[in-house]
Amino acid sequence: MKEKVTLGLIGFGVVGSGTVELLRRHRRDIEDRVGARVELKWICSHSKKESPLIDRTVRQTRNWKTVVSDPEVDCVIELMGGTEPARTVVLTAIRNGKHVVTANKAILSKNWDEIFGLADERHCLVYFEAAVGGGVPVVQALNEGLAGNEITKIVGILNGTTNFILTRMHESGLSFGEALKEAQKAGFAEANPAFDVKGIDAAQKISILGSLAIGQWIPPEQVYCEGISKLRQTDIRLIQDRLHSTIKLLGIAEKIGNAWAFRVHPTLVARTHPFANVRNEYNAIALHGNAAGEVLLYGKGAGRLPTSSAVISDIIFLCRQIANGTAGQLPYVSRLARKRVRIAEMSQIRSRYYLRVTTLDRPGVLANITSILGQHRVSIASVHQDTFEENRSKKSVPIILQTHMTREADMQASVEEINRMKTIRASSVLLRME
Amino acid sequence: MKEKVTLGLIGFGVVGSGTVELLRRHRRDIEDRVGARVELKWICSHSKKESPLIDRTVRQTRNWKTVVSDPEVDCVIELMGGTEPARTVVLTAIRNGKHVVTANKAILSKNWDEIFGLADERHCLVYFEAAVGGGVPVVQALNEGLAGNEITKIVGILNGTTNFILTRMHESGLSFGEALKEAQKAGFAEANPAFDVKGIDAAQKISILGSLAIGQWIPPEQVYCEGISKLRQTDIRLIQDRLHSTIKLLGIAEKIGNAWAFRVHPTLVARTHPFANVRNEYNAIALHGNAAGEVLLYGKGAGRLPTSSAVISDIIFLCRQIANGTAGQLPYVSRLARKRVRIAEMSQIRSRYYLRVTTLDRPGVLANITSILGQHRVSIASVHQDTFEENRSKKSVPIILQTHMTREADMQASVEEINRMKTIRASSVLLRME
Repeated sequence: MKEKVTLGLIGFGVVGSGTVELLRRHRRDIEDRVGARVELKWICSHSKKESPLIDRTVRQTRNWKTVVSDPEVDCVIELMGGTEPARTVVLTAIRNGKHVVTANKAILSKNWDEIFGLADERHCLVYFEAAVGGGVPVVQALNEGLAGNEITKIVGILNGTTNFILTRMHESGLSFGEALKEAQKAGFAEANPAFDVKGIDAAQKISILGSLAIGQWIPPEQVYCEGISKLRQTDIRLIQDRLHSTIKLLGIAEKIGNAWAFRVHPTLVARTHPFANVRNEYNAIALHGNAAGEVLLYGKGAGRLPTSSAVISDIIFLCRQIANGTAGQLPYVSRLARKRVRIAEMSQIRSRYYLRVTTLDRPGVLANITSILGQHRVSIASVHQDTFEENRSKKSVPIILQTHMTREADMQASVEEINRMKTIRASSVLLRME
Repeated sequence: MKEKVTLGLIGFGVVGSGTVELLRRHRRDIEDRVGARVELKWICSHSKKESPLIDRTVRQTRNWKTVVSDPEVDCVIELMGGTEPARTVVLTAIRNGKHVVTANKAILSKNWDEIFGLADERHCLVYFEAAVGGGVPVVQALNEGLAGNEITKIVGILNGTTNFILTRMHESGLSFGEALKEAQKAGFAEANPAFDVKGIDAAQKISILGSLAIGQWIPPEQVYCEGISKLRQTDIRLIQDRLHSTIKLLGIAEKIGNAWAFRVHPTLVARTHPFANVRNEYNAIALHGNAAGEVLLYGKGAGRLPTSSAVISDIIFLCRQIANGTAGQLPYVSRLARKRVRIAEMSQIRSRYYLRVTTLDRPGVLANITSILGQHRVSIASVHQDTFEENRSKKSVPIILQTHMTREADMQASVEEINRMKTIRASSVLLRME
């Protein structure tokens, strides 16, 4: 047993300072669980900080190379965020034989094979609980708690910003633009919200969870991605009132035959499903195992202390293995899929669908629409047409259709054909259902 | 590194056979994660079994002593259930230096200090993910995922039987008796349902989770316990329709000042809370950490494969440590509370309350009731009186009150006094709210 494990922390922003705070506050508990002293030797940040969190035992530097090349450092905690120099920091640390804890979803999703390949080679561990789901211990649940399962599906509300916006649109009738402004005011959305509202953040996270479950890297570019900025109050209201459902931005990784499909898009969720009550900035992830069934985890997906809590959990596991000399004997992340997994085209997925068609109020229109759907083998579960007084105008009337399980390709072909009908007054709205 | 870890399984019922099935089906994945071969040497059960799950490498015995005294066995998997001989089996195994995996909530909640005290003494590990929440990895989340947190509260739907019954009472308007019969028919309730419906099962589970979180044994006798058999459709309907809430049997462990309160009772949960959508036989547990905030886990709380999935997860962790020679260096369960924890009396807890009073329909009655509440410092949040046509009769009328946060003692004193009023026609119904 080593008596002391030495940490070097790089990046002293929101999560960095939260991590140092928890390290200090829970020092005795952490060291009890590690079975050795845990010493923070370095804090690396842009400028020297004065903080009651930083005592005289901690050294400060502006040069990350000092930290990753210090032979005394056992474990590097990368909390800079962004892609570079974070990627280089992590790779250099591993090359120098350091174990790593990181909260950086961007570099993991984009450099999965590079990072974990090097980690395998150097017998280093890279832990990353905080990279997905903030304070929710989903990486651990997936990689360890459900280890005796074949995972067949992962579905998650992975982005707090968009979930906040959608909650406001549902509960207060705000438009997307109004809800976005409120999210920015509340500090839940960046000045440039594209990364969140386009679904890119969720795509990176489902890429990480899926890669972990499958044992093979699925880069975020392979994730079909649709954001929430085009959602309209008309649909929000109809979905709420008529279909007793709510719209969530879901990240989905799903086994389809021998392939997997990865996708992020707004999705209808029934009000009785646990996801429906995941409100505001909260995250939730459902893991489907062939033995455990559906296991769902819920909690704060972001924020200073929730994210730091996940970093601390990683530090404890890692330091325990460093202390007892077993760190790196086995890889934390398997990259050995039993069979090479193929990624399914979006057109191959199957789902139920919500379709809103805006049409002239003329006899025969519904017959035309249902006949087009029938020709494409789309089976209709329900039609709502007559009672939307508020959405009715002299010129056009909305028709709401729900389908049974249908192939995406058939659905898309139907909608294309419907949109070409002369009686159609506006582009149809198509949403998937879970 | 050991090349092989040897298991002895005792108890080959529903969970035992599920565990062997998963061990066989996922053998390669399990051994990859353990880093050594994992060999099941013994199956101990009442009678010799013929099963395609049992191949020629496995030996069978009716005598558990054979298994726990075999020097080759590294880890004993106790899946007999019940209190004896299970307790003796586990203690003897530990005394012989074996690590243990168990799914037995009864012996853990009743013999916590005896089992984990001996385990500490012999440097053995006892893992028990399956004892609480079936396939939901809540023990791991509490003990490891949230290790960097002080846990201040645990709230759980911990019993699938009662949750199934309550779901049926809410969704189909069944009486308690009718719903119980349906649960028995569906295989979710025993012929003698007392253990479940009186809340004893939930009390054992919250005792385990609380003991783990605090680092001190809280025996189930210290858990205040109220079952669901007295719940009436009248309240179910009023709570649903007027208060937009649902009743769940919750197990709660909560820090109050320097003490902790442990309790199990039917509780009102708002329809917007994630717990409200935990239906039928599902379980859910919310863990409140001072850093992570509220983390909620949801899944199947019982059943052959979900429970076996949790056993397999324990086997993997344990065998990995056995293989690399670190098992037992650190205890899995801490029994070292920082300060000796005092258990609060039920009268000291604070809650919001639902109170249904059945009274003669006479002027001044409401004034009398509110005045009694006021004298006991109970602050009223809402009153519903006038519109319950269906519950109204010539003789009596129900009044529904909701309170703000109130001390249990004040609430109980109020109800006692209200029940003594001459205008009261039936004993008042008091329920707590979360």
